[in-house]
Amino acid sequence: MIAEILTIGDELLRGSRVDTNSAFLARKLDEIGIDVRYKSTAADDMDCLEEALGLALRRADIIITTGGLGPTDDDITKKAICKVFKRNLIFHENVLADLEKRFAARGMKMPSINQNQALLPQGASFLANRTGSALGIVIDEHGKFFCSMPGVPAEMETMTVEELIPHLRDRTGDRIVLRHLVRTIGVPESVLAEKFRTGLKLSDGVSLAYLPAFGKVDLAIKGTGTVREEIQTGVDQAAATIRNLVGDAVFTEDDRELEAVVGSMLVERQLTLATAESCTAGLLAGRISRVPGSSRYFLGGVVAYANEVKMNVLQVPREMLDSVGAVSAETAEAMARGVRKLTGASIGISVTGVAGPDGGTADKPVGTVFVGLATEQAVTSKKYLMGGDREIVRERTVLVALDAVRRALMD
Amino acid sequence: MIAEILTIGDELLRGSRVDTNSAFLARKLDEIGIDVRYKSTAADDMDCLEEALGLALRRADIIITTGGLGPTDDDITKKAICKVFKRNLIFHENVLADLEKRFAARGMKMPSINQNQALLPQGASFLANRTGSALGIVIDEHGKFFCSMPGVPAEMETMTVEELIPHLRDRTGDRIVLRHLVRTIGVPESVLAEKFRTGLKLSDGVSLAYLPAFGKVDLAIKGTGTVREEIQTGVDQAAATIRNLVGDAVFTEDDRELEAVVGSMLVERQLTLATAESCTAGLLAGRISRVPGSSRYFLGGVVAYANEVKMNVLQVPREMLDSVGAVSAETAEAMARGVRKLTGASIGISVTGVAGPDGGTADKPVGTVFVGLATEQAVTSKKYLMGGDREIVRERTVLVALDAVRRALMD
Repeated sequence: MIAEILTIGDELLRGSRVDTNSAFLARKLDEIGIDVRYKSTAADDMDCLEEALGLALRRADIIITTGGLGPTDDDITKKAICKVFKRNLIFHENVLADLEKRFAARGMKMPSINQNQALLPQGASFLANRTGSALGIVIDEHGKFFCSMPGVPAEMETMTVEELIPHLRDRTGDRIVLRHLVRTIGVPESVLAEKFRTGLKLSDGVSLAYLPAFGKVDLAIKGTGTVREEIQTGVDQAAATIRNLVGDAVFTEDDRELEAVVGSMLVERQLTLATAESCTAGLLAGRISRVPGSSRYFLGGVVAYANEVKMNVLQVPREMLDSVGAVSAETAEAMARGVRKLTGASIGISVTGVAGPDGGTADKPVGTVFVGLATEQAVTSKKYLMGGDREIVRERTVLVALDAVRRALMD
Repeated sequence: MIAEILTIGDELLRGSRVDTNSAFLARKLDEIGIDVRYKSTAADDMDCLEEALGLALRRADIIITTGGLGPTDDDITKKAICKVFKRNLIFHENVLADLEKRFAARGMKMPSINQNQALLPQGASFLANRTGSALGIVIDEHGKFFCSMPGVPAEMETMTVEELIPHLRDRTGDRIVLRHLVRTIGVPESVLAEKFRTGLKLSDGVSLAYLPAFGKVDLAIKGTGTVREEIQTGVDQAAATIRNLVGDAVFTEDDRELEAVVGSMLVERQLTLATAESCTAGLLAGRISRVPGSSRYFLGGVVAYANEVKMNVLQVPREMLDSVGAVSAETAEAMARGVRKLTGASIGISVTGVAGPDGGTADKPVGTVFVGLATEQAVTSKKYLMGGDREIVRERTVLVALDAVRRALMD
């Protein structure tokens, strides 16, 4: 079963949009053992699209496209499908009725341009779109499975998980694929690779992929074969060895993000958290609160971008700011202590640093960050030097701050 | 001049990495008038790579690849180039000497595996890599321009700007491409399309593309031809008509983000800003502070996730929270007023809402958001109903809050 993902849209070829759809789709297909061998992109242009669809249908068994299903004139994916599969676009009354109902439910009259969304290829089947107006289109014949989905990521993602994957799961045959994810933080990929080079032997059919992103490295163990127990044993052995070699840099062995892991730990221990941020200016709080239900343990915090806010709201002493500066261990600790007191949280976590591009000095170059942590027992801080530009420094800082909370909760 | 971008790497086909390289490259090529007609991805596998390179060389004049140039065994792009172009890999003494010098400059001994980086195809020319060890490889013959670059985004981007683009600029010939971007917020794509269908006539050679993202729609006007003044006139006319039809939903006509536009307006008016966030919990502050130099006008704010923080830090009255609730016009206004007073900012902007997935009621379903705005003159608020899941609601809310500040500053 060879799959091709074809993303459609001028904006992708002009580079005005980064394609995140194909990575999402590839991941979901890989999870059910479907090999994505080809990825390609076509313009909103009939010749290009016909050529790309033709090539995909020749070389792949499963062809998934995203994009070009909108109601405006520049969206021509449906017309191209009709040309390549030699069908007509016909008007689907029931689809139109559904759409009108959905607009009515929001108290709106459907713009007439959306009538186009009910024009669909004859003899296709359709995938529901819970969040938008373009249906998915499936043509499944002569041993080829073809599916066209909208390009809006949120719509495509929901449709993939709820509609497409269940459709495809039956096609993957006898081949069993088992996976196990070990997520680590704070150890560089090269250091992990060195540890594993001598310490890790993988059984037949088991492979390990490194997926680094900022300060995190996901270790993706994959076992493939036909005998489930054999594969499971191989995968389990690899996971156990990795766990031994990497220790507490492992933050989870499922697909949860670090903020969700920290959240669970806080819930278990019945503790609350508050944030005091300077250079990340809300991104840490924003990350913590990504987790649904985080209001059980996250109280909030202070974005202390200006020194006046550090002084007046977090009670950082002016003399401290004047003597050691806002980017210092002392200020980080005072901020953590201050926000803990202000909010009554069990734990205060703080961040102050130089995100750049300006503001660096010889002593405190761009990327210098202090993370402070205040608990009932103690107030501590740690200094980091982050590489990268402004946004990367801020992203990395969010991660090390979250990890500081995790490590404090482990003790 | 038709170009193809070929990205190389198993991680792209497995979806464990989102490809940002091809969008960057496409943008840079588009800027100098080179049409990227094809984008494709190949695995780190000799057969796949040969097939993909062969196809690209048949259908495009300019072929740019990224990835697979590293020193480890799984990187085979150089070998594939040698096969397709029928050349040998030969050892380049001067390249090795350069590499050794660079490691020595950092006080390091070069790991022996990096010797592979000096093995390069015979008769190619090379592009310098300021930030990494893999050179770019250029083969320019028989009317085809082929260039292979490393896959690490930072390396590829620097190499593109400093080496590749100057190389290619001479090849674009007489064709002139002019662009103009009109960025809008708050008007759906279908409504814009409806307005333009009757009100906008484009001159020959001028095209308009819609690039929607959340509540924003970018309108990309492009004019192509050989007489600069004619194209410029056509593009200017289109921009003027759009401006008339869309009005103050246009937030900029350059490539700045909304937060940068708001930032410039604050600087011009010598005003400062502070945030009070409940459901976005720091994301608004994080977005405002993305702009380098935002400390000139952004003081900080409060993440008031828990009601206690709303009461104790922002002085929202308990009776208000008990009677109308945290998600209400009254609370939004009290939060904006509170943070303005707390920080001394000229403008306080606040957000409170139900991001979901839980917490919705019949009265205030998931997606209900109130944005409050406090200035010296007045305190106001506005209610929104956002579609989408938790993260989308939060993202959209950040945008409408920023836009509320923009509109207040316009008055």
